[in-house]
Amino acid sequence: MVGSSEKVVRIGLAAPGTRMDPALAERVTAFAAELYGPRVELIFHPQCFLSSGHFAGDDDARAAAILDIANDPGFDALWFARGGYGACRIAETVIPQLNEAAQAKAWLGYSDIGFLLAGLRRAGFPRIAHGPMPVDMAREGGEAAVRRGLSWLVDGATSALERGVTPGHPNLAFNLTILSQLLGTPLEPDFSGAVILLEDVGEYMYRLDRYFFHVTSNPNVQRCAGLRLGRCSAIPSNDPDFGMTEEEVARFWCARSGIPYLGRADIGHDNENKVVPFG
Amino acid sequence: MVGSSEKVVRIGLAAPGTRMDPALAERVTAFAAELYGPRVELIFHPQCFLSSGHFAGDDDARAAAILDIANDPGFDALWFARGGYGACRIAETVIPQLNEAAQAKAWLGYSDIGFLLAGLRRAGFPRIAHGPMPVDMAREGGEAAVRRGLSWLVDGATSALERGVTPGHPNLAFNLTILSQLLGTPLEPDFSGAVILLEDVGEYMYRLDRYFFHVTSNPNVQRCAGLRLGRCSAIPSNDPDFGMTEEEVARFWCARSGIPYLGRADIGHDNENKVVPFG
Repeated sequence: MVGSSEKVVRIGLAAPGTRMDPALAERVTAFAAELYGPRVELIFHPQCFLSSGHFAGDDDARAAAILDIANDPGFDALWFARGGYGACRIAETVIPQLNEAAQAKAWLGYSDIGFLLAGLRRAGFPRIAHGPMPVDMAREGGEAAVRRGLSWLVDGATSALERGVTPGHPNLAFNLTILSQLLGTPLEPDFSGAVILLEDVGEYMYRLDRYFFHVTSNPNVQRCAGLRLGRCSAIPSNDPDFGMTEEEVARFWCARSGIPYLGRADIGHDNENKVVPFG
Repeated sequence: MVGSSEKVVRIGLAAPGTRMDPALAERVTAFAAELYGPRVELIFHPQCFLSSGHFAGDDDARAAAILDIANDPGFDALWFARGGYGACRIAETVIPQLNEAAQAKAWLGYSDIGFLLAGLRRAGFPRIAHGPMPVDMAREGGEAAVRRGLSWLVDGATSALERGVTPGHPNLAFNLTILSQLLGTPLEPDFSGAVILLEDVGEYMYRLDRYFFHVTSNPNVQRCAGLRLGRCSAIPSNDPDFGMTEEEVARFWCARSGIPYLGRADIGHDNENKVVPFG
Protein backbone atom coordinates (compact mmCIF):
# COMPACT_ATOMS: atom_id res chain seq x y z
CA MET A 1 0.00 0.00 0.00
CA VAL A 2 1.33 3.43 -0.91
CA GLY A 3 2.29 5.36 2.17
CA SER A 4 2.21 2.36 4.50
CA SER A 5 5.84 1.36 3.97
CA GLU A 6 7.01 3.35 7.00
CA LYS A 7 4.76 1.53 9.43
CA VAL A 8 6.57 -1.18 11.37
CA VAL A 9 4.41 -4.22 12.15
CA ARG A 10 5.19 -5.43 15.66
CA ILE A 11 4.25 -9.02 16.43
CA GLY A 12 4.49 -10.32 20.00
CA LEU A 13 4.83 -14.05 20.68
CA ALA A 14 3.73 -16.05 23.70
CA ALA A 15 3.59 -19.80 24.39
CA PRO A 16 0.47 -20.75 26.43
CA GLY A 17 1.34 -24.46 26.44
CA THR A 18 4.78 -25.97 26.15
CA ARG A 19 8.21 -24.39 25.86
CA MET A 20 9.56 -22.97 22.59
CA ASP A 21 13.05 -23.99 21.51
CA PRO A 22 15.17 -20.78 21.52
CA ALA A 23 17.13 -21.85 18.43
CA LEU A 24 13.89 -22.35 16.53
CA ALA A 25 12.69 -18.91 17.63
CA GLU A 26 15.93 -17.42 16.27
CA ARG A 27 15.42 -19.16 12.94
CA VAL A 28 11.90 -17.74 12.68
CA THR A 29 13.11 -14.25 13.59
CA ALA A 30 15.84 -14.45 10.92
CA PHE A 31 13.37 -15.76 8.37
CA ALA A 32 10.95 -12.87 9.03
CA ALA A 33 13.84 -10.40 8.68
CA GLU A 34 14.78 -12.00 5.37
CA LEU A 35 11.20 -11.72 4.11
CA TYR A 36 10.25 -8.27 5.41
CA GLY A 37 13.41 -6.50 6.55
CA PRO A 38 12.86 -3.82 9.22
CA ARG A 39 9.18 -3.54 8.32
CA VAL A 40 8.33 -6.45 10.63
CA GLU A 41 9.51 -7.03 14.20
CA LEU A 42 9.00 -10.36 15.95
CA ILE A 43 9.32 -10.12 19.72
CA PHE A 44 9.34 -13.44 21.57
CA HIS A 45 8.23 -12.89 25.15
CA PRO A 46 10.86 -14.38 27.52
CA GLN A 47 8.09 -16.60 28.89
CA CYS A 48 8.27 -18.69 25.69
CA PHE A 49 11.55 -20.15 26.93
CA LEU A 50 10.61 -20.83 30.56
CA SER A 51 10.14 -24.33 31.85
CA SER A 52 7.86 -25.54 34.66
CA GLY A 53 7.17 -29.29 34.49
CA HIS A 54 5.20 -29.87 31.30
CA PHE A 55 4.70 -26.18 30.67
CA ALA A 56 6.52 -23.08 29.40
CA GLY A 57 6.41 -21.51 32.85
CA ASP A 58 3.68 -21.87 35.45
CA ASP A 59 0.09 -20.80 34.86
CA ASP A 60 0.71 -17.27 36.19
CA ALA A 61 3.74 -16.73 33.97
CA ARG A 62 1.97 -17.98 30.86
CA ALA A 63 -1.13 -15.88 31.54
CA ALA A 64 0.98 -12.78 32.25
CA ALA A 65 2.88 -13.12 28.98
CA ILE A 66 -0.32 -13.10 26.95
CA LEU A 67 -1.59 -10.06 28.86
CA ASP A 68 1.75 -8.23 28.45
CA ILE A 69 1.54 -8.48 24.68
CA ALA A 70 -2.23 -8.38 24.17
CA ASN A 71 -2.93 -5.29 26.25
CA ASP A 72 0.02 -3.29 24.82
CA PRO A 73 -1.13 -1.05 21.93
CA GLY A 74 2.47 -1.12 20.69
CA PHE A 75 1.89 -4.62 19.33
CA ASP A 76 -0.20 -5.16 16.19
CA ALA A 77 -0.59 -8.90 16.61
CA LEU A 78 -0.26 -11.73 19.10
CA TRP A 79 1.14 -14.79 17.36
CA PHE A 80 1.19 -17.94 19.44
CA ALA A 81 4.69 -19.39 19.17
CA ARG A 82 3.46 -22.96 19.53
CA GLY A 83 0.80 -25.24 20.96
CA GLY A 84 1.38 -28.18 23.27
CA TYR A 85 -1.05 -28.73 26.13
CA GLY A 86 -1.65 -25.84 28.49
CA ALA A 87 -3.93 -23.08 27.13
CA CYS A 88 -7.08 -24.37 28.86
CA ARG A 89 -5.45 -23.79 32.24
CA ILE A 90 -5.12 -20.04 31.68
CA ALA A 91 -7.76 -18.97 29.13
CA GLU A 92 -10.42 -18.12 31.73
CA THR A 93 -7.91 -16.05 33.72
CA VAL A 94 -6.64 -14.14 30.70
CA ILE A 95 -9.75 -13.32 28.68
CA PRO A 96 -11.63 -11.16 31.23
CA GLN A 97 -8.46 -9.03 31.68
CA LEU A 98 -8.02 -8.16 28.00
CA ASN A 99 -8.44 -4.50 27.00
CA GLU A 100 -9.29 -2.59 23.81
CA ALA A 101 -5.75 -2.92 22.46
CA ALA A 102 -6.19 -6.69 22.73
CA GLN A 103 -9.52 -6.54 20.89
CA ALA A 104 -7.92 -4.60 18.03
CA LYS A 105 -5.09 -7.11 17.51
CA ALA A 106 -4.74 -9.99 15.10
CA TRP A 107 -4.45 -13.35 16.93
CA LEU A 108 -3.12 -16.48 15.21
CA GLY A 109 -2.49 -20.07 16.28
CA TYR A 110 -3.89 -23.61 16.18
CA SER A 111 -3.84 -26.99 17.94
CA ASP A 112 -4.03 -26.55 21.73
CA ILE A 113 -4.37 -22.78 21.11
CA GLY A 114 -7.97 -23.57 20.09
CA PHE A 115 -8.96 -23.19 23.75
CA LEU A 116 -7.96 -19.51 23.55
CA LEU A 117 -9.39 -18.95 20.08
CA ALA A 118 -12.72 -20.38 21.30
CA GLY A 119 -12.82 -18.16 24.37
CA LEU A 120 -11.80 -15.08 22.35
CA ARG A 121 -14.52 -15.85 19.81
CA ARG A 122 -17.04 -16.14 22.60
CA ALA A 123 -15.83 -12.79 23.96
CA GLY A 124 -16.46 -11.18 20.55
CA PHE A 125 -12.88 -10.63 19.40
CA PRO A 126 -13.02 -9.78 15.68
CA ARG A 127 -9.53 -10.69 14.40
CA ILE A 128 -8.76 -14.24 15.44
CA ALA A 129 -7.62 -16.96 13.07
CA HIS A 130 -6.62 -20.63 13.03
CA GLY A 131 -3.34 -21.08 11.19
CA PRO A 132 0.43 -21.64 11.16
CA MET A 133 2.72 -20.88 14.09
CA PRO A 134 6.48 -20.31 14.42
CA VAL A 135 6.94 -23.89 15.68
CA ASP A 136 6.00 -25.11 12.20
CA MET A 137 9.50 -24.00 11.13
CA ALA A 138 10.68 -27.31 12.62
CA ARG A 139 8.83 -29.26 9.92
CA GLU A 140 10.62 -30.20 6.73
CA GLY A 141 9.72 -27.36 4.38
CA GLY A 142 8.17 -25.51 7.30
CA GLU A 143 9.16 -22.13 5.88
CA ALA A 144 6.05 -22.24 3.69
CA ALA A 145 3.77 -22.47 6.72
CA VAL A 146 5.62 -19.74 8.62
CA ARG A 147 5.59 -17.48 5.54
CA ARG A 148 1.84 -18.01 5.19
CA GLY A 149 1.18 -17.15 8.83
CA LEU A 150 3.31 -14.01 8.56
CA SER A 151 1.64 -12.89 5.34
CA TRP A 152 -1.75 -12.97 7.05
CA LEU A 153 -0.48 -11.20 10.17
CA VAL A 154 1.46 -8.52 8.28
CA ASP A 155 -0.68 -7.88 5.19
CA GLY A 156 -3.90 -9.85 5.75
CA ALA A 157 -2.90 -11.68 2.55
CA THR A 158 -5.86 -13.46 0.99
CA SER A 159 -3.43 -15.95 -0.59
CA ALA A 160 -2.89 -17.34 2.92
CA LEU A 161 -6.55 -18.22 3.39
CA GLU A 162 -8.16 -21.64 3.20
CA ARG A 163 -9.81 -21.55 -0.22
CA GLY A 164 -13.30 -22.55 0.93
CA VAL A 165 -13.50 -19.78 3.50
CA THR A 166 -15.90 -16.92 2.71
CA PRO A 167 -14.56 -13.72 4.27
CA GLY A 168 -16.97 -12.33 6.82
CA HIS A 169 -18.84 -15.62 7.15
CA PRO A 170 -18.23 -17.48 10.44
CA ASN A 171 -15.72 -20.28 9.88
CA LEU A 172 -14.57 -21.82 13.13
CA ALA A 173 -11.54 -24.09 12.76
CA PHE A 174 -10.37 -26.38 15.54
CA ASN A 175 -8.36 -29.40 16.35
CA LEU A 176 -11.06 -32.05 16.84
CA THR A 177 -9.68 -33.17 20.20
CA ILE A 178 -9.54 -29.61 21.50
CA LEU A 179 -13.07 -28.85 20.35
CA SER A 180 -14.31 -31.95 22.19
CA GLN A 181 -12.51 -30.84 25.34
CA LEU A 182 -13.96 -27.33 25.40
CA LEU A 183 -17.62 -28.19 24.83
CA GLY A 184 -19.65 -27.43 27.93
CA THR A 185 -16.93 -25.21 29.42
CA PRO A 186 -16.98 -21.39 29.71
CA LEU A 187 -14.80 -21.29 26.56
CA GLU A 188 -17.44 -22.80 24.24
CA PRO A 189 -18.38 -20.36 21.44
CA ASP A 190 -21.73 -20.16 19.64
CA PHE A 191 -21.73 -22.36 16.54
CA SER A 192 -25.09 -21.20 15.15
CA GLY A 193 -24.79 -20.76 11.41
CA ALA A 194 -21.01 -21.26 11.40
CA VAL A 195 -19.04 -23.66 9.25
CA ILE A 196 -16.86 -25.84 11.48
CA LEU A 197 -13.48 -27.00 10.13
CA LEU A 198 -11.77 -29.82 12.02
CA GLU A 199 -8.34 -31.41 11.83
CA ASP A 200 -6.38 -33.73 14.08
CA VAL A 201 -3.03 -35.41 14.54
CA GLY A 202 -1.80 -38.55 16.22
CA GLU A 203 -5.15 -39.95 17.33
CA TYR A 204 -6.30 -43.56 16.84
CA MET A 205 -9.24 -44.05 14.49
CA TYR A 206 -11.39 -45.27 17.39
CA ARG A 207 -10.66 -42.00 19.19
CA LEU A 208 -11.47 -39.92 16.12
CA ASP A 209 -14.77 -41.80 15.91
CA ARG A 210 -15.43 -41.16 19.61
CA TYR A 211 -14.60 -37.46 19.27
CA PHE A 212 -16.99 -37.25 16.33
CA PHE A 213 -19.70 -38.90 18.45
CA HIS A 214 -19.07 -36.37 21.19
CA VAL A 215 -18.87 -33.28 19.02
CA THR A 216 -21.75 -34.05 16.65
CA SER A 217 -24.03 -35.04 19.56
CA ASN A 218 -23.72 -31.56 21.01
CA PRO A 219 -26.82 -29.34 20.54
CA ASN A 220 -24.76 -26.18 20.02
CA VAL A 221 -22.59 -27.87 17.38
CA GLN A 222 -25.74 -29.22 15.73
CA ARG A 223 -26.83 -25.62 15.06
CA CYS A 224 -23.81 -25.09 12.78
CA ALA A 225 -24.18 -24.59 9.02
CA GLY A 226 -21.99 -27.59 8.25
CA LEU A 227 -18.73 -29.37 8.88
CA ARG A 228 -15.59 -29.62 6.77
CA LEU A 229 -12.88 -32.19 7.47
CA GLY A 230 -9.23 -31.15 7.46
CA ARG A 231 -6.37 -33.59 7.52
CA CYS A 232 -6.09 -36.22 10.24
CA SER A 233 -2.41 -37.12 10.17
CA ALA A 234 -0.18 -39.62 11.96
CA ILE A 235 -3.07 -41.93 12.87
CA PRO A 236 -1.56 -44.85 14.80
CA SER A 237 -2.51 -48.24 13.37
CA ASN A 238 -5.60 -49.86 14.82
CA ASP A 239 -5.53 -53.61 15.47
CA PRO A 240 -7.74 -54.88 13.92
CA ASP A 241 -8.15 -52.27 11.20
CA PHE A 242 -10.87 -49.84 12.27
CA GLY A 243 -12.90 -50.46 9.13
CA MET A 244 -13.61 -46.83 8.23
CA THR A 245 -11.48 -43.91 7.06
CA GLU A 246 -11.62 -40.55 8.82
CA GLU A 247 -13.81 -39.16 6.03
CA GLU A 248 -16.22 -42.10 6.34
CA VAL A 249 -16.33 -41.45 10.08
CA ALA A 250 -17.03 -37.73 9.56
CA ARG A 251 -19.77 -38.50 7.02
CA PHE A 252 -21.32 -41.12 9.32
CA TRP A 253 -21.63 -38.80 12.30
CA CYS A 254 -22.74 -35.82 10.21
CA ALA A 255 -25.51 -37.91 8.64
CA ARG A 256 -26.58 -39.27 12.00
CA SER A 257 -26.70 -35.86 13.66
CA GLY A 258 -28.21 -33.95 10.75
CA ILE A 259 -25.13 -31.76 10.25
CA PRO A 260 -24.37 -31.04 6.57
CA TYR A 261 -21.03 -32.56 5.59
CA LEU A 262 -19.39 -29.98 3.33
CA GLY A 263 -16.27 -31.89 2.19
CA ARG A 264 -12.58 -31.61 2.93
CA ALA A 265 -10.74 -28.58 4.30
CA ASP A 266 -7.14 -27.53 3.65
CA ILE A 267 -6.01 -27.44 7.27
CA GLY A 268 -3.90 -29.78 9.39
CA HIS A 269 -0.76 -30.24 11.45
CA ASP A 270 1.47 -29.75 8.40
CA ASN A 271 3.11 -27.28 6.04
CA GLU A 272 -0.05 -26.90 3.96
CA ASN A 273 -2.12 -25.66 6.89
CA LYS A 274 -4.02 -22.60 5.59
CA VAL A 275 -5.31 -19.62 7.57
CA VAL A 276 -8.97 -19.63 8.67
CA PRO A 277 -10.12 -16.27 10.05
CA PHE A 278 -13.08 -16.90 12.33
CA GLY A 279 -14.93 -14.14 10.42
CA MET B 1 -31.74 -67.14 51.54
CA VAL B 2 -33.95 -70.03 52.64
CA GLY B 3 -36.10 -71.26 49.79
CA SER B 4 -34.13 -69.47 47.13
CA SER B 5 -31.69 -72.29 46.52
CA GLU B 6 -33.81 -73.72 43.70
CA LYS B 7 -33.82 -70.50 41.73
CA VAL B 8 -31.32 -70.53 38.87
CA VAL B 9 -29.71 -67.13 38.22
CA ARG B 10 -29.41 -66.60 34.47
CA ILE B 11 -26.86 -64.03 33.35
CA GLY B 12 -26.72 -62.96 29.71
CA LEU B 13 -23.54 -61.47 28.26
CA ALA B 14 -23.11 -59.02 25.38
CA ALA B 15 -20.10 -57.10 24.06
CA PRO B 16 -21.07 -53.55 22.94
CA GLY B 17 -17.51 -52.67 21.97
CA THR B 18 -14.81 -55.05 20.88
CA ARG B 19 -14.78 -58.81 20.42
CA MET B 20 -14.53 -61.26 23.32
CA ASP B 21 -11.98 -64.06 23.09
CA PRO B 22 -13.98 -67.34 23.04
CA ALA B 23 -11.36 -69.17 25.11
CA LEU B 24 -11.58 -66.48 27.79
CA ALA B 25 -15.38 -66.75 27.77
CA GLU B 26 -15.03 -70.52 28.35
CA ARG B 27 -12.70 -69.94 31.28
CA VAL B 28 -15.19 -67.55 32.87
CA THR B 29 -18.06 -69.99 32.31
CA ALA B 30 -16.04 -72.80 33.92
CA PHE B 31 -15.06 -70.53 36.81
CA ALA B 32 -18.70 -69.60 37.49
CA ALA B 33 -19.67 -73.28 37.39
CA GLU B 34 -16.91 -74.05 39.89
CA LEU B 35 -18.15 -71.27 42.22
CA TYR B 36 -21.90 -71.74 41.97
CA GLY B 37 -22.61 -75.09 40.25
CA PRO B 38 -25.96 -75.27 38.44
CA ARG B 39 -27.33 -72.35 40.46
CA VAL B 40 -25.81 -69.85 38.02
CA GLU B 41 -25.94 -69.95 34.23
CA LEU B 42 -23.75 -67.67 32.10
CA ILE B 43 -24.97 -67.35 28.54
CA PHE B 44 -22.62 -65.50 26.17
CA HIS B 45 -24.62 -64.10 23.27
CA PRO B 46 -23.03 -65.29 19.98
CA GLN B 47 -22.56 -61.60 19.13
CA CYS B 48 -19.69 -61.45 21.64
CA PHE B 49 -17.54 -63.42 19.21
CA LEU B 50 -18.40 -61.60 15.98
CA SER B 51 -15.92 -59.36 14.26
CA SER B 52 -16.56 -56.30 12.09
CA GLY B 53 -13.52 -54.06 11.74
CA HIS B 54 -12.78 -52.68 15.21
CA PHE B 55 -16.02 -54.02 16.66
CA ALA B 56 -17.65 -57.24 17.89
CA GLY B 57 -20.11 -57.17 15.00
CA ASP B 58 -21.62 -54.13 13.32
CA ASP B 59 -23.73 -51.58 15.17
CA ASP B 60 -26.99 -53.45 14.43
CA ALA B 61 -25.63 -56.77 15.69
CA ARG B 62 -24.26 -55.26 18.89
CA ALA B 63 -27.48 -53.36 19.60
CA ALA B 64 -29.62 -56.44 18.88
CA ALA B 65 -27.60 -58.59 21.29
CA ILE B 66 -28.22 -56.19 24.16
CA LEU B 67 -31.94 -56.07 23.34
CA ASP B 68 -32.15 -59.89 23.05
CA ILE B 69 -30.86 -60.31 26.59
CA ALA B 70 -32.22 -57.16 28.23
CA ASN B 71 -35.82 -57.53 27.10
CA ASP B 72 -36.02 -61.27 27.92
CA PRO B 73 -37.55 -61.83 31.38
CA GLY B 74 -35.73 -65.19 31.43
CA PHE B 75 -32.49 -63.37 32.21
CA ASP B 76 -31.85 -61.91 35.67
CA ALA B 77 -28.87 -59.81 34.68
CA LEU B 78 -27.02 -58.37 31.73
CA TRP B 79 -23.27 -58.55 32.33
CA PHE B 80 -21.13 -56.79 29.78
CA ALA B 81 -18.46 -59.25 28.70
CA ARG B 82 -15.93 -56.52 28.05
CA GLY B 83 -15.38 -52.89 27.07
CA GLY B 84 -13.29 -51.65 24.18
CA TYR B 85 -14.59 -48.74 22.15
CA GLY B 86 -18.06 -49.04 20.69
CA ALA B 87 -20.92 -48.54 23.17
CA CYS B 88 -21.52 -44.88 22.27
CA ARG B 89 -22.44 -45.91 18.72
CA ILE B 90 -25.40 -47.99 19.87
CA ALA B 91 -26.58 -46.65 23.25
CA GLU B 92 -29.11 -44.21 21.81
CA THR B 93 -30.57 -46.94 19.58
CA VAL B 94 -30.85 -49.48 22.38
CA ILE B 95 -32.14 -47.52 25.36
CA PRO B 96 -35.51 -46.36 23.98
CA GLN B 97 -36.30 -49.98 23.00
CA LEU B 98 -35.78 -51.47 26.47
CA ASN B 99 -38.84 -52.94 28.22
CA GLU B 100 -39.86 -53.66 31.83
CA ALA B 101 -37.81 -56.85 31.95
CA ALA B 102 -34.77 -54.74 31.11
CA GLN B 103 -35.61 -52.25 33.86
CA ALA B 104 -35.83 -55.06 36.42
CA LYS B 105 -32.41 -56.52 35.57
CA ALA B 106 -29.02 -55.98 37.15
CA TRP B 107 -26.53 -54.40 34.72
CA LEU B 108 -22.78 -54.48 35.32
CA GLY B 109 -19.72 -53.24 33.44
CA TYR B 110 -17.13 -50.45 33.29
CA SER B 111 -14.68 -48.63 30.98
CA ASP B 112 -16.30 -47.95 27.58
CA ILE B 113 -19.53 -49.46 28.99
CA GLY B 114 -19.90 -46.16 30.86
CA PHE B 115 -21.70 -44.75 27.82
CA LEU B 116 -24.48 -47.30 28.41
CA LEU B 117 -24.46 -46.97 32.21
CA ALA B 118 -24.86 -43.19 31.80
CA GLY B 119 -27.76 -43.52 29.38
CA LEU B 120 -29.45 -46.16 31.56
CA ARG B 121 -29.04 -43.93 34.60
CA ARG B 122 -30.60 -41.06 32.72
CA ALA B 123 -33.47 -43.35 31.71
CA GLY B 124 -34.08 -44.17 35.40
CA PHE B 125 -32.86 -47.78 35.50
CA PRO B 126 -32.51 -48.72 39.17
CA ARG B 127 -30.02 -51.63 39.13
CA ILE B 128 -26.94 -50.52 37.24
CA ALA B 129 -23.41 -50.75 38.58
CA HIS B 130 -19.82 -50.00 37.62
CA GLY B 131 -17.62 -53.02 38.25
CA PRO B 132 -15.69 -56.06 37.03
CA MET B 133 -16.37 -57.85 33.75
CA PRO B 134 -15.53 -61.33 32.41
CA VAL B 135 -12.62 -59.90 30.39
CA ASP B 136 -10.86 -59.19 33.70
CA MET B 137 -10.18 -62.95 33.85
CA ALA B 138 -7.28 -62.23 31.45
CA ARG B 139 -5.46 -60.25 34.17
CA GLU B 140 -3.00 -62.02 36.43
CA GLY B 141 -5.10 -62.95 39.46
CA GLY B 142 -8.18 -61.84 37.54
CA GLU B 143 -10.35 -64.49 39.21
CA ALA B 144 -10.76 -62.14 42.19
CA ALA B 145 -12.35 -59.47 40.01
CA VAL B 146 -14.61 -61.94 38.19
CA ARG B 147 -15.67 -63.53 41.50
CA ARG B 148 -16.51 -60.07 42.86
CA GLY B 149 -18.61 -59.18 39.83
CA LEU B 150 -20.47 -62.49 40.03
CA SER B 151 -21.12 -62.15 43.76
CA TRP B 152 -22.85 -58.83 43.18
CA LEU B 153 -24.86 -60.13 40.22
CA VAL B 154 -25.89 -63.39 41.91
CA ASP B 155 -26.34 -62.40 45.56
CA GLY B 156 -26.01 -58.61 45.65
CA ALA B 157 -23.05 -59.27 47.98
CA THR B 158 -22.14 -56.19 49.99
CA SER B 159 -18.57 -57.50 50.25
CA ALA B 160 -18.21 -56.68 46.55
CA LEU B 161 -18.97 -52.99 47.05
CA GLU B 162 -16.55 -50.10 47.06
CA ARG B 163 -16.20 -49.36 50.78
CA GLY B 164 -17.01 -45.64 50.57
CA VAL B 165 -20.28 -46.20 48.78
CA THR B 166 -23.44 -45.54 50.78
CA PRO B 167 -26.20 -47.85 49.50
CA GLY B 168 -29.11 -45.88 48.13
CA HIS B 169 -27.05 -42.70 47.77
CA PRO B 170 -26.19 -41.75 44.16
CA ASN B 171 -22.62 -42.80 43.39
CA LEU B 172 -21.81 -42.49 39.71
CA ALA B 173 -18.58 -44.20 38.70
CA PHE B 174 -16.97 -43.69 35.32
CA ASN B 175 -13.82 -43.92 33.37
CA LEU B 176 -12.67 -40.28 33.22
CA THR B 177 -12.19 -40.33 29.44
CA ILE B 178 -15.63 -41.82 28.88
CA LEU B 179 -17.30 -39.28 31.16
CA SER B 180 -15.62 -36.46 29.23
CA GLN B 181 -16.85 -37.91 25.96
CA LEU B 182 -20.49 -38.22 27.02
CA LEU B 183 -20.95 -34.73 28.49
CA GLY B 184 -23.36 -32.72 26.36
CA THR B 185 -24.69 -35.81 24.57
CA PRO B 186 -28.13 -37.41 25.05
CA LEU B 187 -26.44 -39.96 27.35
CA GLU B 188 -25.43 -37.42 30.03
CA PRO B 189 -27.05 -38.23 33.38
CA ASP B 190 -27.97 -35.74 36.12
CA PHE B 191 -25.09 -35.35 38.59
CA SER B 192 -26.96 -33.20 41.12
CA GLY B 193 -26.10 -34.38 44.61
CA ALA B 194 -24.23 -37.46 43.40
CA VAL B 195 -20.72 -38.52 44.34
CA ILE B 196 -18.69 -39.02 41.17
CA LEU B 197 -15.97 -41.71 41.19
CA LEU B 198 -13.43 -41.58 38.37
CA GLU B 199 -10.68 -43.92 37.19
CA ASP B 200 -8.59 -44.15 34.04
CA VAL B 201 -5.99 -46.24 32.29
CA GLY B 202 -3.27 -45.60 29.74
CA GLU B 203 -3.66 -41.82 29.45
CA TYR B 204 -0.80 -39.31 29.57
CA MET B 205 -0.78 -36.95 32.56
CA TYR B 206 -1.42 -33.98 30.27
CA ARG B 207 -4.53 -35.73 29.00
CA LEU B 208 -5.72 -36.54 32.50
CA ASP B 209 -5.27 -32.86 33.34
CA ARG B 210 -7.21 -31.86 30.20
CA TYR B 211 -10.02 -34.30 30.99
CA PHE B 212 -10.23 -32.87 34.51
CA PHE B 213 -10.45 -29.36 33.03
CA HIS B 214 -13.26 -30.51 30.76
CA VAL B 215 -15.21 -32.49 33.33
CA THR B 216 -14.92 -30.08 36.26
CA SER B 217 -15.81 -27.09 34.04
CA ASN B 218 -19.19 -28.65 33.25
CA PRO B 219 -22.14 -27.00 35.07
CA ASN B 220 -23.97 -30.33 35.54
CA VAL B 221 -20.88 -31.98 37.01
CA GLN B 222 -20.40 -28.94 39.26
CA ARG B 223 -23.76 -29.72 40.91
CA CYS B 224 -22.35 -33.03 42.22
CA ALA B 225 -21.79 -33.65 45.93
CA GLY B 226 -18.11 -34.38 45.41
CA LEU B 227 -15.51 -36.30 43.49
CA ARG B 228 -13.46 -39.36 44.45
CA LEU B 229 -10.41 -40.44 42.49
CA GLY B 230 -9.92 -44.09 41.59
CA ARG B 231 -6.72 -45.50 40.20
CA CYS B 232 -5.13 -44.03 37.08
CA SER B 233 -2.93 -46.86 35.85
CA ALA B 234 -0.43 -47.36 33.03
CA ILE B 235 0.20 -43.62 32.61
CA PRO B 236 2.75 -43.25 29.78
CA SER B 237 5.78 -41.19 30.77
CA ASN B 238 5.59 -37.48 30.05
CA ASP B 239 8.69 -35.73 28.68
CA PRO B 240 9.43 -33.53 30.56
CA ASP B 241 7.79 -34.86 33.71
CA PHE B 242 4.33 -33.36 34.02
CA GLY B 243 5.06 -31.93 37.45
CA MET B 244 1.87 -33.11 39.21
CA THR B 245 0.50 -36.51 40.19
CA GLU B 246 -3.02 -37.54 39.24
CA GLU B 247 -4.22 -36.79 42.76
CA GLU B 248 -2.66 -33.31 42.66
CA VAL B 249 -4.41 -32.78 39.33
CA ALA B 250 -7.76 -33.93 40.74
CA ARG B 251 -7.36 -31.69 43.79
CA PHE B 252 -6.36 -28.71 41.61
CA TRP B 253 -9.41 -28.90 39.37
CA CYS B 254 -11.80 -29.66 42.24
CA ALA B 255 -10.55 -26.61 44.14
CA ARG B 256 -10.78 -24.42 41.06
CA SER B 257 -14.32 -25.52 40.20
CA GLY B 258 -15.67 -25.62 43.74
CA ILE B 259 -16.28 -29.39 43.69
CA PRO B 260 -15.49 -31.07 47.04
CA TYR B 261 -12.60 -33.51 46.65
CA LEU B 262 -13.54 -36.53 48.75
CA GLY B 263 -10.36 -38.62 48.50
CA ARG B 264 -9.41 -41.83 46.75
CA ALA B 265 -11.78 -44.54 45.50
CA ASP B 266 -11.14 -48.26 45.21
CA ILE B 267 -11.88 -48.61 41.49
CA GLY B 268 -9.67 -48.99 38.43
CA HIS B 269 -8.71 -51.13 35.47
CA ASP B 270 -7.37 -53.88 37.74
CA ASN B 271 -8.19 -56.89 39.92
CA GLU B 272 -9.09 -54.70 42.89
CA ASN B 273 -11.85 -52.88 41.02
CA LYS B 274 -14.84 -52.83 43.39
CA VAL B 275 -18.55 -52.65 42.52
CA VAL B 276 -20.25 -49.24 42.59
CA PRO B 277 -24.05 -49.46 42.30
CA PHE B 278 -25.32 -46.17 40.93
CA GLY B 279 -27.84 -46.16 43.81
